[in-house]
Amino acid sequence: MLRVGVIGTGGIGRAHVERIATCIPDAKVVAVNDISEESALAVAGQYGIRCEKDPHALIGAEDVDAVIVTTWDRTHEEFVVSAIREGKHVFCEKPLSNTSQGCRNIMDAEIAGGKRLLMVGFMRRYDKGYRQMKAAIEAQKLGEPLLVHAQHRNAAPTGEKHTTEMSVNGALVHEFDITRWLVNDEYETAQLICPKSTKNADEDLIDPQMVILRTKSGIHIDLEIYMNCRYGYDIQCEVVGEEGTVRLPDPANAIFRKDGGRTYEIYSGWAKRFEEAYETEMKEWVKCVLKDDLSECPTAWDGYVTAVVAEACTKARLTEGTVRIDLIEKPEFYN
Amino acid sequence: MLRVGVIGTGGIGRAHVERIATCIPDAKVVAVNDISEESALAVAGQYGIRCEKDPHALIGAEDVDAVIVTTWDRTHEEFVVSAIREGKHVFCEKPLSNTSQGCRNIMDAEIAGGKRLLMVGFMRRYDKGYRQMKAAIEAQKLGEPLLVHAQHRNAAPTGEKHTTEMSVNGALVHEFDITRWLVNDEYETAQLICPKSTKNADEDLIDPQMVILRTKSGIHIDLEIYMNCRYGYDIQCEVVGEEGTVRLPDPANAIFRKDGGRTYEIYSGWAKRFEEAYETEMKEWVKCVLKDDLSECPTAWDGYVTAVVAEACTKARLTEGTVRIDLIEKPEFYN
Amino acid sequence: MLRVGVIGTGGIGRAHVERIATCIPDAKVVAVNDISEESALAVAGQYGIRCEKDPHALIGAEDVDAVIVTTWDRTHEEFVVSAIREGKHVFCEKPLSNTSQGCRNIMDAEIAGGKRLLMVGFMRRYDKGYRQMKAAIEAQKLGEPLLVHAQHRNAAPTGEKHTTEMSVNGALVHEFDITRWLVNDEYETAQLICPKSTKNADEDLIDPQMVILRTKSGIHIDLEIYMNCRYGYDIQCEVVGEEGTVRLPDPANAIFRKDGGRTYEIYSGWAKRFEEAYETEMKEWVKCVLKDDLSECPTAWDGYVTAVVAEACTKARLTEGTVRIDLIEKPEFYN
Amino acid sequence: MLRVGVIGTGGIGRAHVERIATCIPDAKVVAVNDISEESALAVAGQYGIRCEKDPHALIGAEDVDAVIVTTWDRTHEEFVVSAIREGKHVFCEKPLSNTSQGCRNIMDAEIAGGKRLLMVGFMRRYDKGYRQMKAAIEAQKLGEPLLVHAQHRNAAPTGEKHTTEMSVNGALVHEFDITRWLVNDEYETAQLICPKSTKNADEDLIDPQMVILRTKSGIHIDLEIYMNCRYGYDIQCEVVGEEGTVRLPDPANAIFRKDGGRTYEIYSGWAKRFEEAYETEMKEWVKCVLKDDLSECPTAWDGYVTAVVAEACTKARLTEGTVRIDLIEKPEFYN
Repeated sequence: MLRVGVIGTGGIGRAHVERIATCIPDAKVVAVNDISEESALAVAGQYGIRCEKDPHALIGAEDVDAVIVTTWDRTHEEFVVSAIREGKHVFCEKPLSNTSQGCRNIMDAEIAGGKRLLMVGFMRRYDKGYRQMKAAIEAQKLGEPLLVHAQHRNAAPTGEKHTTEMSVNGALVHEFDITRWLVNDEYETAQLICPKSTKNADEDLIDPQMVILRTKSGIHIDLEIYMNCRYGYDIQCEVVGEEGTVRLPDPANAIFRKDGGRTYEIYSGWAKRFEEAYETEMKEWVKCVLKDDLSECPTAWDGYVTAVVAEACTKARLTEGTVRIDLIEKPEFYN
Repeated sequence: MLRVGVIGTGGIGRAHVERIATCIPDAKVVAVNDISEESALAVAGQYGIRCEKDPHALIGAEDVDAVIVTTWDRTHEEFVVSAIREGKHVFCEKPLSNTSQGCRNIMDAEIAGGKRLLMVGFMRRYDKGYRQMKAAIEAQKLGEPLLVHAQHRNAAPTGEKHTTEMSVNGALVHEFDITRWLVNDEYETAQLICPKSTKNADEDLIDPQMVILRTKSGIHIDLEIYMNCRYGYDIQCEVVGEEGTVRLPDPANAIFRKDGGRTYEIYSGWAKRFEEAYETEMKEWVKCVLKDDLSECPTAWDGYVTAVVAEACTKARLTEGTVRIDLIEKPEFYN
Repeated sequence: MLRVGVIGTGGIGRAHVERIATCIPDAKVVAVNDISEESALAVAGQYGIRCEKDPHALIGAEDVDAVIVTTWDRTHEEFVVSAIREGKHVFCEKPLSNTSQGCRNIMDAEIAGGKRLLMVGFMRRYDKGYRQMKAAIEAQKLGEPLLVHAQHRNAAPTGEKHTTEMSVNGALVHEFDITRWLVNDEYETAQLICPKSTKNADEDLIDPQMVILRTKSGIHIDLEIYMNCRYGYDIQCEVVGEEGTVRLPDPANAIFRKDGGRTYEIYSGWAKRFEEAYETEMKEWVKCVLKDDLSECPTAWDGYVTAVVAEACTKARLTEGTVRIDLIEKPEFYN
Repeated sequence: MLRVGVIGTGGIGRAHVERIATCIPDAKVVAVNDISEESALAVAGQYGIRCEKDPHALIGAEDVDAVIVTTWDRTHEEFVVSAIREGKHVFCEKPLSNTSQGCRNIMDAEIAGGKRLLMVGFMRRYDKGYRQMKAAIEAQKLGEPLLVHAQHRNAAPTGEKHTTEMSVNGALVHEFDITRWLVNDEYETAQLICPKSTKNADEDLIDPQMVILRTKSGIHIDLEIYMNCRYGYDIQCEVVGEEGTVRLPDPANAIFRKDGGRTYEIYSGWAKRFEEAYETEMKEWVKCVLKDDLSECPTAWDGYVTAVVAEACTKARLTEGTVRIDLIEKPEFYN
């Protein structure tokens, strides 16, 4: 039984608490913390668990075997490093840090500790559709991958005021991770294109945006991020190889013939779209932690790469040019 | 150049005239006739062709090489037999006759003349989707066919008051023909099931209806006819074989992602749904007539079989039982 | 925490044990039994739980709160009744009994006890696709349902020698349940049609078969059962209503463009096809038992109805006629 | 009746001759010419028409009302200008010229003549799917278009040795035309990206390539050209607007469930894929010429724009940068 402490009881944190309570017999949440004590107390009360006022006390608590960090992006580094220093496993939501330097600090801490303790919450790697795609690519069913076309569309931004940078750092970061995972290659350059914006976007927001990436082996990747597509939450991905292509399927929804058309629903939000992937992800984390083997999980290096890409995208946007993605040498530790 | 006379200038007749004028260089309509002289004159005027007051004069006219009959069902026999006796090729819309006896009379006339002169307008045999299905079956891609499931749905009946019998005799007759053509077998029994009717049907109309057929080799066929499905004109067909199934595709229409769904249009009427099939059919007829070889065209025998099935369905409906489909022995002439 | 005893450690029993162990924090299996002590011991060993030699001892054990019965069909009645008499909740795999009389005995026992204790394992009611269909029907999106067309195809039978009766009793029973649940109506008549059999079937097996059902309100239902379709495990269902239709979607699998075609995989077996539904089912059972409220679960009445339909199908097959489905009056207890 | 002369009796020329002979009653081919007299004689013999040794004699012949030019790209200008100077309507296959200057010369000739006489063979504008897309966009069903993603894939190049430039000039030119037609905007910049090439390409060929275009209003367009995709001839296009997206459908082909998958065929070549569009195109040309009104047809300006884009793509490839698409001011004549 894995005893878990959760720092951050916003929407995603609460969803993890609920998921562990209802789907994962091998784990239980024993303590929660949030910068809003009210929020933490509410969750603690609902699930009959302890509320820790101090996040570091939670991390250090004897009955906490592992930590989940779902706080604001800029605080991830602090809590993750703290957990690593305590020698505790830690699951951190993406993005791992709001800066690539933050990710490097985390890697430094983890390497210093000498043991893999961190998993980053790139849950799409646990989605059945993406896994089928990766399996096909690895089985060489398409020959070498040459191109990736992907679209990431949200009906509309939620929460705090959405900025042009957040589209890339907060949303497209999923594509940065899943794409390199699918084609098993590293990025080399980034370009960001700002087309005409939709009238449905807030005044300062550039929306949609297109990011063009190139990998070291020469694979071309084009990624659409569109936060105000209005019609639903729609994630598309096609990998084009030497012998054929593979595409992410739409979720299976009931098919109507009605009102002059054949229609199925597109989900309105990410929570429902990736519900199963989130559950699989958390199960896998618990399983890997209990086995003390995180070799198959998304690492700090993965978090670092996506942070560097996001920074390159911002630079590419401001300079309107193609920007090199300068990664440090990959530490042996993460191979 | 095939010179054609058209008897019947209602919607379908006019469509044939237009089709020949715009798509078939090897034929031209030289004369038209209709019980409504006004209608015939209008068409004649529009296309600059002759209006013949008397249908038999049209059939006998020297400059008429071949005749198209698109009049009321009950008059088909008269005009078709007349054309055959004149030794002229004749294309007759389905159903060939409103009675199986009428079809027999036509067969007798044709056999007496000693030459295939008639093609019945089962235009679905010229639809690309059905042809692909037949090609797959004949190539033994599915092994032996065992089952057929088909649906024939109209948004709503048009024209004169629609009766329960017309659903079968006028609409489902297409399935009677296309199904036996697909599986290359003859019918043995028929059953007709009257489910609960839709509130959208006229008071006396049983709608939908289900017809269950069995072929001599034991293939099971279930056919839905639904005249008031409301959502469009929708034709579905699946043949189930020993090694797999093949299904008629929906027409290719643009795919929208919009308003929370992924949608494509279903056509509202048969004219658009089978536009290409009608054109191919007429081209094939002209080609076959000019080659004087109708061996590949739907015959009087095909028209006869569907008439017998329709009569069996009526009997089955009235007796609520399974009815034998008693066909005369197939004349050598039609092999 | 619900403490569960499992009688029957064949494939399905083991799958339930595994599911509870890995997906359901609120339950744990504490004891297992099987007619093959070797099988029970193996499972007990693997999961570190107790093996009970006597099924009735398992049912009566103090630390067993609820029982799962996954033994041979003919033994269901004995164990279910025993559990009910002990006042314990019991989950029984479909079919509830191999005879309708067995189901009646179970109902009698449950009614005598005065409390709903039984859930029958009609797991399709927990499948997302069927739930979307039911939700649409209940929301009157299609108007009244008039027709149901469904296909149940297996690649090939597994296990013991498959008989014509087993296709109906063991496999099509799923359709008997899900269809009446979808349209919320009761059956009135059954007919069974034996088409030409596939060459891939064992000599004595009639395969495929068609079952035609009619509900009290006049809904027509046609069900295909095909145990040797070869190409995969394929479950299709379309409900046709007054204003449109709704169809079960295929599972979402990655889409390939390759070798001249666009293709996605069809699963080869039921375990993968309904994996999610099985998990949801078991979760719902545990939740309902812990709440002591089975009002939303499939009941002994549901099991009884499907048993009567199965018996009517056998009779219909032997008599080649339409057979009335004679249900006893529905006990108030099950409303 | 339009009397047509055809210059160029290669595959496409012959297809036009056949099409006119079999589908277009209002036109007939009266003379053919080819640089290979043998080829021209063969076609002339097959269709019983005249072979003209000199292309200019054909253009000037009294019985030739209009000319079709399907020769090598570099000779288009000569024959088109010649036809225009004779005051004859001329249909020219795409690309209109192998240089933008050639297109300008054609425009100059046409403007000097004072009358629209040229239609360029951008046949995709006559494809049903694209027309549905354009209709939806023009009806403002998607709001303003913001992005276009398109893929142009060939199984393998045919004919003469295929070069990197030919992928763009010969094949992608279709996308250059159809995209601006769909979104009704003009191009501003072009970028060409050379990803890793497929092992299936000839040594010198860069394949696939990606072209990124931007329109004056800021619409982003990314076009994939892939000449060796192996699996078939596959044309995809999605327009993303403010309120939704619309996508070109796959052709409707029969759907198989077989061998563990659900599959439909992708055509292997362009001739079958766009068969209907080619026929519609030729019919429209004949109709417009007979009405002496080419206002709805693709113009020399359209041919010029695509030539400029193609040249910009070559420059972009060689400079690895973003290149302005410098168009001359659009002559009033073409508005």
